[in-house]
Amino acid sequence: MIKNLIDKIEKTGAPIVVGLDPKMPMIPQHILKPVFEEYGETLEAASEAIFQFNKAIVDATYDLIPAVKPQIAMYEQFGIPGLVAFQRTVDYCHEKGLIVIGDVKRGDIGSTSESYAIAHLGKIQVGSKTYAPFSEDFATVNPYLGSDGITPFVDICKKEDRGIFVLVKTSNPSSGEFQDRIIDGKPLYEHVAEKVNSWGADCMDGSYSEVGAVVGATYPEMGAELRKLMPHAYILVPGYGAQGGRGKDLVNFFNPDGLGAIVNSSRGIIAAYQQEEYKKYGEENFAEASRAAVIAMKNDINGALGK
Amino acid sequence: MIKNLIDKIEKTGAPIVVGLDPKMPMIPQHILKPVFEEYGETLEAASEAIFQFNKAIVDATYDLIPAVKPQIAMYEQFGIPGLVAFQRTVDYCHEKGLIVIGDVKRGDIGSTSESYAIAHLGKIQVGSKTYAPFSEDFATVNPYLGSDGITPFVDICKKEDRGIFVLVKTSNPSSGEFQDRIIDGKPLYEHVAEKVNSWGADCMDGSYSEVGAVVGATYPEMGAELRKLMPHAYILVPGYGAQGGRGKDLVNFFNPDGLGAIVNSSRGIIAAYQQEEYKKYGEENFAEASRAAVIAMKNDINGALGK
Repeated sequence: MIKNLIDKIEKTGAPIVVGLDPKMPMIPQHILKPVFEEYGETLEAASEAIFQFNKAIVDATYDLIPAVKPQIAMYEQFGIPGLVAFQRTVDYCHEKGLIVIGDVKRGDIGSTSESYAIAHLGKIQVGSKTYAPFSEDFATVNPYLGSDGITPFVDICKKEDRGIFVLVKTSNPSSGEFQDRIIDGKPLYEHVAEKVNSWGADCMDGSYSEVGAVVGATYPEMGAELRKLMPHAYILVPGYGAQGGRGKDLVNFFNPDGLGAIVNSSRGIIAAYQQEEYKKYGEENFAEASRAAVIAMKNDINGALGK
Repeated sequence: MIKNLIDKIEKTGAPIVVGLDPKMPMIPQHILKPVFEEYGETLEAASEAIFQFNKAIVDATYDLIPAVKPQIAMYEQFGIPGLVAFQRTVDYCHEKGLIVIGDVKRGDIGSTSESYAIAHLGKIQVGSKTYAPFSEDFATVNPYLGSDGITPFVDICKKEDRGIFVLVKTSNPSSGEFQDRIIDGKPLYEHVAEKVNSWGADCMDGSYSEVGAVVGATYPEMGAELRKLMPHAYILVPGYGAQGGRGKDLVNFFNPDGLGAIVNSSRGIIAAYQQEEYKKYGEENFAEASRAAVIAMKNDINGALGK
């Protein structure tokens, strides 16, 4: 699956992913009002409004980008109807030819991790029938529980041609509380990075492994180190834009061939129309503002990469 | 909420929690057959069968136990219909007066962690209306992202009178890969334990904090250390029974007053009828076998505690 992602990145010339992390205050009135009129102020209404919002952004950007990354928490908070919007979003993005990275940060042990892997990347048996539950292409995974938590995901990746991104160094201010602590002369995140190499060693798909890593844009020096440490791991880089990262900070996350990293922006793209720079589009044309923000982000990153 | 849990533990005399982690091969034919006949071999059928299985076990044990712990991965793997079974299980357990620990192991940063906390412990606003999505009483939480990942949960706990259990030392064989690594003279899990103390310091509810910890039954020596290190944290102890823990291994997880820990068993209870010891009950009476297994577990632990 990582090869498919790279093919799409090369085709679009855009090493970027749009984070579909909708929040109610982002959704324009012309979507909300008719939905509330039809469904009342219900979870079902929130679900429908979120899907319509996502769909408009996908329709306005899918030709420019290789992938989207829906953050499942934004859907899960609306209960079952919210998760229906998540599923509809995944399915719709697949219809439009996009690769879907489920930002689910799951992680448990043994058969429980296997169940999460089935839920998001695999297939489940019911009697003699088989179903693909949420069916993302990639999932993000938390490494705190060690190999027992990761290898069930890796097994499903091999079987189903899917991939994972393991949290190595996250973009948030307090990520250092545990991740930066020194163990045998190097920070915990480097130990996790070494495990990413070993977990991914026997599931190569072209020059990269199905096992990638999450490294925050907000830590460019660590990004440079981690890029070298994990030569076969694609790096998913959150923290661009709203969290402070910029194109010039991101050069070190890439390999000399311009591959090796894919940068996420969520708010900066999907709520572009609420930012000073894109206010001129107006609420009605929020999706066009998102398209403009994607183009600006692509230019910023490619410019920094000298492309 | 931790006070409610302790009240229920004292009332039932059972510091135990039943892990509602159903798998298809555990579900007896007399449940599966009519459900498949009605719904076909569908995800909806799996959902209905899982709920009926859980309901029978809850009906047979709710008077003996304070709490249940559904593992959401077991439901999530059946997609939306599976999560409907999760929600029905939570609601039904509440109807029967049980406290529900959502074993969700969620964890992200900032507003994303807040969304997970809302999903499982809080309330969400839609227009002028407010809804409680999954509405468990406690949730398990992963600490790898540091305070940014935990404090949004703590804030919701304070606001809604709920609690969390933070993964400190997990029960699985490879938990030591990162958790046991030495940082400044002590293992990572002890650093996490210190953070559990500070995260929980200003949300005490009686003698214990709303912020508890997960420490696996399979590591009794570490349990003894961690019990001392986190005097106000209730410890949720997985790994009893099927994973190898026994009552005598668990004494150290408790305080001298007999409080301070609650021990989970999943397979050992809900699939008791499939074990040699309880085979005599037969598949038809699987729930009665679960009741017998609960009584045996309670006696084992209370015996070890000298009660």
